[in-house]
Amino acid sequence: MITVYTWTTPNGRKVPIMLEELGWPYEVRTVNLGQNEQHAPEFLQISPNNKIPALVDDEAEGGPLSIFESGAILTYLAEKSGRFLAPSGPERYKALEWLHWQIGSLGPMLGQLGYFAVRAQDKTPAAIERFTEEGARLLAVMEKQLAQHRYLAGEEYTIADIAAYPWTMAAASFLKDALAEAWKDKEAVRRWLKDVGERPAVQRGMGVPKV
Amino acid sequence: MITVYTWTTPNGRKVPIMLEELGWPYEVRTVNLGQNEQHAPEFLQISPNNKIPALVDDEAEGGPLSIFESGAILTYLAEKSGRFLAPSGPERYKALEWLHWQIGSLGPMLGQLGYFAVRAQDKTPAAIERFTEEGARLLAVMEKQLAQHRYLAGEEYTIADIAAYPWTMAAASFLKDALAEAWKDKEAVRRWLKDVGERPAVQRGMGVPKV
Repeated sequence: MITVYTWTTPNGRKVPIMLEELGWPYEVRTVNLGQNEQHAPEFLQISPNNKIPALVDDEAEGGPLSIFESGAILTYLAEKSGRFLAPSGPERYKALEWLHWQIGSLGPMLGQLGYFAVRAQDKTPAAIERFTEEGARLLAVMEKQLAQHRYLAGEEYTIADIAAYPWTMAAASFLKDALAEAWKDKEAVRRWLKDVGERPAVQRGMGVPKV
Repeated sequence: MITVYTWTTPNGRKVPIMLEELGWPYEVRTVNLGQNEQHAPEFLQISPNNKIPALVDDEAEGGPLSIFESGAILTYLAEKSGRFLAPSGPERYKALEWLHWQIGSLGPMLGQLGYFAVRAQDKTPAAIERFTEEGARLLAVMEKQLAQHRYLAGEEYTIADIAAYPWTMAAASFLKDALAEAWKDKEAVRRWLKDVGERPAVQRGMGVPKV
């Protein structure tokens, strides 16, 4: 059995989407960030960085495996299933580059924008400005890529799309006021959001965990 | 031939270190960030996110390959060479989780700390405090792992160490004043820095590019 430790955040949705795409059964354990459950000793055993998501696969090759970091989990599930990531060749590395782009830029920068522009009680204009600019820059990079290709890594749907979808949805909902100016000319990103968002597995995964 | 587009930053050192470890010949093209060369149209063809490093391998399987994102490049070189990343099993995913931890947390958070605490002319206390705390938290996560294991992903040196070394060196040099308090009890991280830093390939890679 696969157990997913997750919460209702963009990073938390990625692994449920992947498992829904695969059609594999899994158990969900909620880690309520509002109640600081990510600092509980039993969770830190699985996720020493105190972040969700984490995954435990009792039936991994070579014995039970626990993994943290959404990018590593998506790569694990893609390699175990042989789906959504080519096993070799340029398609593989295009998917990994856009996966790392989400992990290293889109996620952290939109996460900081969410903190400074929305969640922080005291507003810090210099930080809001910095992360608004960076969020807009990243949406422009995405627009350019998606104007030329159906999906982030090319013509195939990959784990790069699965990783980027919940964050881009956050940019279009939770962060829509902060990024209002940037959204004005993002036709290709909107087309991709609609395309990916119509997948039944994505719709189911975006609803996990239910709380 | 392999060509590396890089600069004198923590992300820029990772790929030279890996190539020095492999002992593979490579050509270096400097992308001077101080002169905004990352926005040049010919570089954007290779790296649409306008960031270094990027790599072009003329002799990739299936034809010339260009890749951006340091995590994807390290994974590519590890898979091409069969070194510093196990091909399957738990060792593989431990290395990928700590690689993603560097890409998604250590790099972006120390990068923002560098901006707000050192590079920005106007100081923003709320942002400095946030990224100092996050930097200290990440060093504590690293300390706990390295107190139990020789390297980040366990007992073997992997691409996770190669990715984390230049950023941890930045935390110990460029950012040492901002993180002075956090460094007081980081014996295991210091032992790892010394251990990794004594590798001749790491010493050579940290000197690339020479400018």
